[in-house]
Amino acid sequence: MVSASRKTFLPLDPVTFSNESKAVIDFIADYYENVEKYPVQSTVEPGYLSAMLPESAPYCPEPLQDILEDVSNCIIPGLTHWQSPNFFAYFHANASTAGFFGEMLCSGFNVVGFNWISSPAATELESIVLDWMGKMLKLPSSFLFSGTGGGVLHGSTCEAAVCVLAAARDKALKELGGWENITKLVVYASDQTHFTFQKAAKLVGIPPSNFRLIETSFSTGFSLSPENLRFVIEDDIRSGLVPLFLCATIGTTPSGAVDPIAELGKVAMEFKLWLHIDAAYAGSGCICPELRHYLDGVELANSISMNPHKWFLTNMDCCCLWIKEPKLLVDSLSTDPEILRNNASKSKAVVDYKDWQIALSRRFRALKLWVVIRRHGLANLMCHIRSDIAMAKRFEALVGEDERFEIVVPRKFALVCFRLKPKVEEEDLNCKLVEAINSSGRAFMSHAVLSGIYVIRCAIGTTLTQQHHVDALWKLIQDKAQSLLM
Amino acid sequence: MVSASRKTFLPLDPVTFSNESKAVIDFIADYYENVEKYPVQSTVEPGYLSAMLPESAPYCPEPLQDILEDVSNCIIPGLTHWQSPNFFAYFHANASTAGFFGEMLCSGFNVVGFNWISSPAATELESIVLDWMGKMLKLPSSFLFSGTGGGVLHGSTCEAAVCVLAAARDKALKELGGWENITKLVVYASDQTHFTFQKAAKLVGIPPSNFRLIETSFSTGFSLSPENLRFVIEDDIRSGLVPLFLCATIGTTPSGAVDPIAELGKVAMEFKLWLHIDAAYAGSGCICPELRHYLDGVELANSISMNPHKWFLTNMDCCCLWIKEPKLLVDSLSTDPEILRNNASKSKAVVDYKDWQIALSRRFRALKLWVVIRRHGLANLMCHIRSDIAMAKRFEALVGEDERFEIVVPRKFALVCFRLKPKVEEEDLNCKLVEAINSSGRAFMSHAVLSGIYVIRCAIGTTLTQQHHVDALWKLIQDKAQSLLM
Repeated sequence: MVSASRKTFLPLDPVTFSNESKAVIDFIADYYENVEKYPVQSTVEPGYLSAMLPESAPYCPEPLQDILEDVSNCIIPGLTHWQSPNFFAYFHANASTAGFFGEMLCSGFNVVGFNWISSPAATELESIVLDWMGKMLKLPSSFLFSGTGGGVLHGSTCEAAVCVLAAARDKALKELGGWENITKLVVYASDQTHFTFQKAAKLVGIPPSNFRLIETSFSTGFSLSPENLRFVIEDDIRSGLVPLFLCATIGTTPSGAVDPIAELGKVAMEFKLWLHIDAAYAGSGCICPELRHYLDGVELANSISMNPHKWFLTNMDCCCLWIKEPKLLVDSLSTDPEILRNNASKSKAVVDYKDWQIALSRRFRALKLWVVIRRHGLANLMCHIRSDIAMAKRFEALVGEDERFEIVVPRKFALVCFRLKPKVEEEDLNCKLVEAINSSGRAFMSHAVLSGIYVIRCAIGTTLTQQHHVDALWKLIQDKAQSLLM
Repeated sequence: MVSASRKTFLPLDPVTFSNESKAVIDFIADYYENVEKYPVQSTVEPGYLSAMLPESAPYCPEPLQDILEDVSNCIIPGLTHWQSPNFFAYFHANASTAGFFGEMLCSGFNVVGFNWISSPAATELESIVLDWMGKMLKLPSSFLFSGTGGGVLHGSTCEAAVCVLAAARDKALKELGGWENITKLVVYASDQTHFTFQKAAKLVGIPPSNFRLIETSFSTGFSLSPENLRFVIEDDIRSGLVPLFLCATIGTTPSGAVDPIAELGKVAMEFKLWLHIDAAYAGSGCICPELRHYLDGVELANSISMNPHKWFLTNMDCCCLWIKEPKLLVDSLSTDPEILRNNASKSKAVVDYKDWQIALSRRFRALKLWVVIRRHGLANLMCHIRSDIAMAKRFEALVGEDERFEIVVPRKFALVCFRLKPKVEEEDLNCKLVEAINSSGRAFMSHAVLSGIYVIRCAIGTTLTQQHHVDALWKLIQDKAQSLLM
């Protein structure tokens, strides 16, 4: 008799909830305690897990301890440890006790705040926290609810991109007078812009041939040239196309480059382009006064997004999007099904966030960001950013002192792009170096190719990374380089 | 001195993590213990929260206890309590200890499994769990990795809809030979289909005028008529349009209607439409053999989705999407940026889930669904579904015994649509009844309008709902009706 009746099967009994959840907390704390012991990049082979797990779901319930044992034995070996202090690849995904705290509350309450009445606190806290965050970044009031704009939490930059692209598209199609003009709309970005914008533009129906990837180079530090942008726009206009949207980036993924917002903004205004600023990574850094200047010119943008889930101690997932004219987002994304009609929505006195995003359902993510900000305070959040930048500066200096290496592009944030100076006959030298580092299990790094040059990216900033980890990384790099150069 | 140095500011220290997290667990367990004491629908007024919270983020860190006190005093009064056993509105959002367990692991590891190497376990467990889930639903092997298809976890049905619509669109545009044909593509659904499909079709660039909402009626129990579908398709073809996509639903939101999949599938095949099945709500029920027949004909579909976060004890968010030809999804959504290139992806021996979804980043949601299935087992998951259906049957019988009321559409799952029989002069009688129930704070219900008739929806199935809650609801409804009819 395995199937229980409703009286004995209580899947949310508070006492069991408390006991079992605490056992899981101990398990996770133990994971953090030991995370440095695992190879940072998983060493499993493709298909490893299907050999360890049954082909079908179990009929009978299984005990908590059996599941946790399987997590230890089957899952952890297959993780690439993003929380390891020796993770230096991509951009990091900061976990923190506060982020986890907020995530637990979100999952515990498990409300679905699609409109105001479905949980007023979820909507209102989100609006308040977006204003808090916007003020920390010194965004103009035109992006804040306390001003004339507003903000929303999405799960990812791509989701934000899809939504602002759809808003820009629908505004343009309305002005142009027909949906068939969709094939005339053009989106601009640089060849360093996150590829998610190209994907998002195609998703909203912009022909892929109308996406302009404007070339960048070493001469501008891989930032987008306003002159080149203007040249391409004018060319498109001559061809009868309609310039729609420009994405500028603060802190590109390959090299941390910063596009010149103020100058690009002028071009965007001249040609009536929707200017979006993608500050997914480096936006968090701009809470520090000494880095805020990278956002200068933001007042010219139509929208801006950044991801607290990268560098802001906020567990996955959390992307802030601010927009100057929320009405355009709502015009494009709103739905008014009978089943959700209610007096609060009818009054227009409330925000219904379902009309600011792709999905209907939504988690109470604002709790997480709110807890992160309060538990750390601006003071410690700046300390976190500055500490990572200090470590990156030190790493940059170490690389600079070793004449076998070179810094490839100037560092702006906590990402250092460097390489072993190659000789002609060693084209894949740096690729081999990354592979040697990663296969050691002692660190995990990734790469980029800039104007044809393979560079190693050292992205510093996991929550647990401390100075000695960076020093050990440098020692590891030197050792592996030594072996390669022998 | 509030700002700490990196040596003393340790935002992921394991001991602090454990202590603070356990305090939050106690807080949440206490919430579940007391959830029945709160008014189910929040009684706050718009703007209540901004009067209680500061306008800007704090500079100094704040203690855990202060934040939890504010959650009690400021947030909980603004929640509409989706975990209350007296929540009967919309469709429910099942939380469970196991779902929370999985969510904690996901948030604790905080890996970003966009491709295989970024965490092989995240990818592989997802594929395995989608096969488990597909087998529980007795999906044909053409939807399973162990067969010729595959599955992926999204956050919502709308995200799944956007992805399959984009895949269908891009396949059609390729065949038609040019992006300008996007204005010819037509999407079909019934007037009971979830509005998210209309939003998704517009998002991917299908002209809103090309979305066909085919009327349903009492005569077919609000299911989509294959004859009417064929009529509309033939009309579109005569107008030079290109039929693209059909969404059929198992368990519609307004009334729980079921579209005749097998017959619709034949029409879809005849006209080469992409057939998607939206089983967001009722899909969970189809793990019970006695309900599986509603999925008969699924072998004719191109894709199917359902949401474990509704009725499957899985905390938000979790949507399963299966597709027969994953290649079409990947063709439409794939990106190949240099920065993510790696040997495993190049080998084509692995799944890179970033190419199966909108965003690049993704949480390890598979852990949650895996834990839910194992911790409960098929046995208890079926018990959960059957218990809810038994309660709905009983509620239906109670309504049927009271001659002042009527059941408006036959019940199929755990949703009962009923109303007070109105007299001519009392047009908004049932609307008033819902408002009286909701404003009592003792239950929360929602409504639908079916062929012009306002019906009250009683959706039974929060994790904590037991028979006595349903009996109390019926007593409350009778009392409020009595007052209204006096």
